[in-house]
Amino acid sequence: MWGESVSLLEPGRHRVAHLADDAALLTAMVRVELAWLRALSGAGLLKPEQVAAAEQQLPSPVIDPAAVESSGNPVKPLVDALRAALPEVSAQLHRGLTSQDVLDTALMLMARNVLDHVTGSLTAAAADLARLADDHRGSVMPGRTLTRYAVPVTFGLTAAQWLAGILDARDAVATVRSALPIQCGGAAGTLSLAGELVADPVALAEDFARQLDLRWPGLPWHTRRTPVTRLGDALTQTVDALGVIAADILMLGRPEIAEVRERAVEGRGGSSTMPHKQNPVLAVLIRSAALQAPGLGAQLHLCAAQAVDQRPDGAWHAEWASCRQLLLLTATAASQTAELVAGLEVDPDTMTRHAESAATHLLAERGEVGGGPASYLGASDAFVDAVLVRWRGSRDA
Amino acid sequence: MWGESVSLLEPGRHRVAHLADDAALLTAMVRVELAWLRALSGAGLLKPEQVAAAEQQLPSPVIDPAAVESSGNPVKPLVDALRAALPEVSAQLHRGLTSQDVLDTALMLMARNVLDHVTGSLTAAAADLARLADDHRGSVMPGRTLTRYAVPVTFGLTAAQWLAGILDARDAVATVRSALPIQCGGAAGTLSLAGELVADPVALAEDFARQLDLRWPGLPWHTRRTPVTRLGDALTQTVDALGVIAADILMLGRPEIAEVRERAVEGRGGSSTMPHKQNPVLAVLIRSAALQAPGLGAQLHLCAAQAVDQRPDGAWHAEWASCRQLLLLTATAASQTAELVAGLEVDPDTMTRHAESAATHLLAERGEVGGGPASYLGASDAFVDAVLVRWRGSRDA
Amino acid sequence: MWGESVSLLEPGRHRVAHLADDAALLTAMVRVELAWLRALSGAGLLKPEQVAAAEQQLPSPVIDPAAVESSGNPVKPLVDALRAALPEVSAQLHRGLTSQDVLDTALMLMARNVLDHVTGSLTAAAADLARLADDHRGSVMPGRTLTRYAVPVTFGLTAAQWLAGILDARDAVATVRSALPIQCGGAAGTLSLAGELVADPVALAEDFARQLDLRWPGLPWHTRRTPVTRLGDALTQTVDALGVIAADILMLGRPEIAEVRERAVEGRGGSSTMPHKQNPVLAVLIRSAALQAPGLGAQLHLCAAQAVDQRPDGAWHAEWASCRQLLLLTATAASQTAELVAGLEVDPDTMTRHAESAATHLLAERGEVGGGPASYLGASDAFVDAVLVRWRGSRDA
Amino acid sequence: MWGESVSLLEPGRHRVAHLADDAALLTAMVRVELAWLRALSGAGLLKPEQVAAAEQQLPSPVIDPAAVESSGNPVKPLVDALRAALPEVSAQLHRGLTSQDVLDTALMLMARNVLDHVTGSLTAAAADLARLADDHRGSVMPGRTLTRYAVPVTFGLTAAQWLAGILDARDAVATVRSALPIQCGGAAGTLSLAGELVADPVALAEDFARQLDLRWPGLPWHTRRTPVTRLGDALTQTVDALGVIAADILMLGRPEIAEVRERAVEGRGGSSTMPHKQNPVLAVLIRSAALQAPGLGAQLHLCAAQAVDQRPDGAWHAEWASCRQLLLLTATAASQTAELVAGLEVDPDTMTRHAESAATHLLAERGEVGGGPASYLGASDAFVDAVLVRWRGSRDA
Repeated sequence: MWGESVSLLEPGRHRVAHLADDAALLTAMVRVELAWLRALSGAGLLKPEQVAAAEQQLPSPVIDPAAVESSGNPVKPLVDALRAALPEVSAQLHRGLTSQDVLDTALMLMARNVLDHVTGSLTAAAADLARLADDHRGSVMPGRTLTRYAVPVTFGLTAAQWLAGILDARDAVATVRSALPIQCGGAAGTLSLAGELVADPVALAEDFARQLDLRWPGLPWHTRRTPVTRLGDALTQTVDALGVIAADILMLGRPEIAEVRERAVEGRGGSSTMPHKQNPVLAVLIRSAALQAPGLGAQLHLCAAQAVDQRPDGAWHAEWASCRQLLLLTATAASQTAELVAGLEVDPDTMTRHAESAATHLLAERGEVGGGPASYLGASDAFVDAVLVRWRGSRDA
Repeated sequence: MWGESVSLLEPGRHRVAHLADDAALLTAMVRVELAWLRALSGAGLLKPEQVAAAEQQLPSPVIDPAAVESSGNPVKPLVDALRAALPEVSAQLHRGLTSQDVLDTALMLMARNVLDHVTGSLTAAAADLARLADDHRGSVMPGRTLTRYAVPVTFGLTAAQWLAGILDARDAVATVRSALPIQCGGAAGTLSLAGELVADPVALAEDFARQLDLRWPGLPWHTRRTPVTRLGDALTQTVDALGVIAADILMLGRPEIAEVRERAVEGRGGSSTMPHKQNPVLAVLIRSAALQAPGLGAQLHLCAAQAVDQRPDGAWHAEWASCRQLLLLTATAASQTAELVAGLEVDPDTMTRHAESAATHLLAERGEVGGGPASYLGASDAFVDAVLVRWRGSRDA
Repeated sequence: MWGESVSLLEPGRHRVAHLADDAALLTAMVRVELAWLRALSGAGLLKPEQVAAAEQQLPSPVIDPAAVESSGNPVKPLVDALRAALPEVSAQLHRGLTSQDVLDTALMLMARNVLDHVTGSLTAAAADLARLADDHRGSVMPGRTLTRYAVPVTFGLTAAQWLAGILDARDAVATVRSALPIQCGGAAGTLSLAGELVADPVALAEDFARQLDLRWPGLPWHTRRTPVTRLGDALTQTVDALGVIAADILMLGRPEIAEVRERAVEGRGGSSTMPHKQNPVLAVLIRSAALQAPGLGAQLHLCAAQAVDQRPDGAWHAEWASCRQLLLLTATAASQTAELVAGLEVDPDTMTRHAESAATHLLAERGEVGGGPASYLGASDAFVDAVLVRWRGSRDA
Repeated sequence: MWGESVSLLEPGRHRVAHLADDAALLTAMVRVELAWLRALSGAGLLKPEQVAAAEQQLPSPVIDPAAVESSGNPVKPLVDALRAALPEVSAQLHRGLTSQDVLDTALMLMARNVLDHVTGSLTAAAADLARLADDHRGSVMPGRTLTRYAVPVTFGLTAAQWLAGILDARDAVATVRSALPIQCGGAAGTLSLAGELVADPVALAEDFARQLDLRWPGLPWHTRRTPVTRLGDALTQTVDALGVIAADILMLGRPEIAEVRERAVEGRGGSSTMPHKQNPVLAVLIRSAALQAPGLGAQLHLCAAQAVDQRPDGAWHAEWASCRQLLLLTATAASQTAELVAGLEVDPDTMTRHAESAATHLLAERGEVGGGPASYLGASDAFVDAVLVRWRGSRDA
């Protein structure tokens, strides 16, 4: 078997690879072709029993990489394989669609599965962050700006800010997920052949969308790639939010600061040469993802902006690998973040000690030290409340 | 004078530079400081007459570039200049704010002005594209995929697809514009000093937002940069849509195709060596913008993902130039696109001639040539209608 | 088995995937560990027979993805597996190295194999381009600037320019290949443990380099990533050169221009819906690579610029996937380009016809049409000669 | 006056803006046009006295931004202004060149000035780093990997690694500087018109190059952008090296670590709200540059890979702003780094205290604590020597 997307160079990818590896893509493409058959059947072009029989006889298609290159995409080899295996419906199979219809729609199906996984991770992380924000309203720590001590903050506020970022991301993901569209335009975006087959090709497209529980966007988007760039923007925004959490945890977890700590797990974070060294592996990997997501999101925009003609000569193809990579990178990092915050060890005593020993600096703005750092927290608590109210509202919605 | 953002290397920038050059930024920062004074006045910390007098006496601040470097940002030099010029309010001026509050909020004010300009350009372009889509429903042309002839399309559908991209962009811009927030957190995002000045610092922040007609987002976002990345994503999406129009016009306007033509304007598009050569300057410049926007948008995400501590040590600073460049790039390209589509010359006869001479190819999918390209347009007209309905709905809203 | 890097979404990847997939990486890492054992043996720390026996008994290591995540990289799981399988050398195996030494060095070994493949493809392409440049010195065609007719050029000059780009790339690849270094610094770049094992740890490192036929760079580069960014820059430059060829071929091969044509290959370039359509698949895929390489190269620079401490907390990890992807993208595109130019069909008659029918435009600069396009070619031939002289010199060197 | 590139949003830019602002660009373009006149004069096309007179009468050209947009670049407006001001040479002025010849060559002249400035900064920084490396061979500090304590290192080795990065960058800059080429190809890269004017247009190009002390690259590179991408790669590599220094200094300068400190300068690093706060402004700004350079370098590659036809329809234009921005960003950051390292305050006592208190961790690899961190430094000193030898060799060369 080829096309696995788990990799030695992408630690943690095994958590989610099955959601978007080649097997998942093949499954999604087959599902798209079947949905189209069902739509054609609804329009009377073949009998429902024929579709049902085809579904029963579905082969496990084996796709030759050389055929993928020859066709420039994996759809034609798949269609050839399906037609050979399903002679009873071979005349109708894929008829009226173009490769891009199938691949774009399959990517949307894969994206939906990944987004659901991401949402689950974000929700879990949010619940833990809400707990931390509430529990640590009184855990005073030094605020740090441009690496220097500023004024006091609380760890509760820090966690609340992380939570707000997660909630922003979850909203962005939900918005995109609810609008994932089918692609359906035929050879050049006119539904030309479908229009020969049925009286109302738009109704056919609508039924196709219903079969897959995706949205019919009113017209094809072969060269208007907003569904792809919006997806990419939501994923990148998500990784941004995760990256901030990881960056803070890495900084606050340095041995000289030691205000938080990634939970030690048996066998995790060990060094190949230094016994007892405990690396903050999850945070490191999440931060690594945050360094990669922006470039992947930009790739999707670049392709969108180059979508010439009725199907561009390379700009569409240049989307694929980055889109899948961004999906899996985000899902991996979200899952790792959920685990990281679930096990985060917080040391309020160390925080307080730091804040008190730095009180002169932390209170210089106010101009008097009396009362100590805990007396100079401004609206910290109100801000924690604001985020918790939002979280509870969204959780219970 | 320094800080002009018009440049010999950014043709067309003069259209919009005044919206976001250094003078505009200074104006915006002063406006932010005054709004804060008014908010403090509303809380009883100084008299309204003092604020009014300060507004009357406002200096034209001259900022020394060396002071900007010394402070790491332009806010402290401005505050110093304002305090020197306005001794009656110098104690209250900026009190409770941090540099980031002022600069972030000023950037949001500048962004609003730019977004309004962009919206104007997009609306103008949309109106012209709607006209083209409607007028050219019957202008049959070859559909082209992967550079080769596919099935017939109409120029009306092509224009409708461009229009749909513009409408998507306009919606994205409107969403972002309506949510532009103030930044207000004080030294480390707790409103610590404001909390010393007034009983309810959050109410003060809300009044500050009202003064500027921006949104109070519930808590500061010093290190949660979604307002900036959402802005960047909407701008990049906009340029993507413009880029597709330019790419198509450049391709369709090649002398060997000549189905459309950028309007010749006296003195525009001339060559420095070849008389009579007429370059499609606007389309070239728009396409150039489309090659640049994705990288600028990615820069904003990269900074967002690195926003460590209560204010990061470089990631905030790395936003500024890219954010301004993306604002101005988008506004320039949108303005150029409005002019380009307003003057676009369409040659339906050439389109038809191409389609008819390629009829064998264009109709190969159907398998019979009878009826000609005009008889194989599928849902083209329905798709044009779908976009025009959307346009009319949004226009009349 | 997992970790395959061939993918349904990367057409043509099967050409080269074996050079850098997970199996290749494992092989390279094992080779690195064995070279270190041999170096230790040279220093008297174990007997040569022990190393030879270990080489005989080498297991096919199976690496658990969960262990890769737990360690944050694939080296520790591999070392654990090797130690378990090779108890006689387990005390010496990996002793003195750190994970980064092994992974960085293994990536250099993989890079060398990929660069050799790339060089082979570039040399083959160069030979064909030299032939085209020489054969078509007299094939006059319209020069095109900003999409419009400029002055006449020859296809020979066009091919010579492509060739010059290929030669520039081949030189860049050769420079990088000859300087590929080992990584050898131990836990924090001091060879601390190696210094306990032998009197001269630098000599040990030099021997390690000799074992692998890589360069010893004088000191470790754990956080000074020039070997990686130079590799990335050379690869990106290579894809740039390939991209220009593909872009020109796609443009000149449009049906309205038809001056060149990607060779039709049985079964290649077919459409899933349109019979007889012949897509220029290789050129499309090469152009797709050219849209992706710059972002991957930038990722490597971004990581290099963030290499804090003695090993950074994510910036190193964020290199891996992009580095491998850039290696394989380049090798795929180079191989496709060699095939594309080998089979390129050139139509000088069409070129001449276009040039003659556009003579008025093409000769406007000169101001007189007499003599025709072929009489206004300036130094075209001299430029072709200049590139061919360079090519012959480099070929025979 | 317009076109200034100093900006409120780019602190420190005033150090170098004059090297590449619009005035510098105009000066460079005028110099290019005059060099061409002199080359034509050498070929007998006008008298040396005419050129000398023209040089005397040179106007200060005022360029209308609208004319820049109309032409798509600043060259034609400049040529128009020069021809109007210099009627005696107007027939020969620019004759045989194209806009791209002038702009590309002018950018190379500007680049040379910037690279010389960068080299000066790098050399100054190198001298100071060499001093630090030598002085602090014995300053033991904790090695840190993945944020955790690893084995001991010395600050001398840290500085030596920074120095090695600077020397790598200086070499890269020198290589690029010595190869900066003229651009000279005329309308479509054939020297067509020059070939009408003189018998040997290539000799004319060679003389043109001599006039400017740039290299004649054998043939034009209008669409083969290696001179631009190599420049960009060298600049990005330089900023990478600067970024590592800044990242380390920011980390080691945190109040909880305090092993180094950016020198306090009167008036620098102050906060707008917190008295006595001393921000590490230079390091923050350098780090900010390091977050921006990779994207700018990638922009140049992206444009290079899209250089279709004899002059592309946007990809050339999309280079300009990024190229200038990258030049100035690098020169600014290099200058700031020279100042930063010149004044860096190192606290070896704190380093030692940290190392000793963490001795158990730092020596865990060795397995015994006896001797303390200073006894476990491996080849640190040899590595410092290796870099210092290289530095002295290059300095005295």
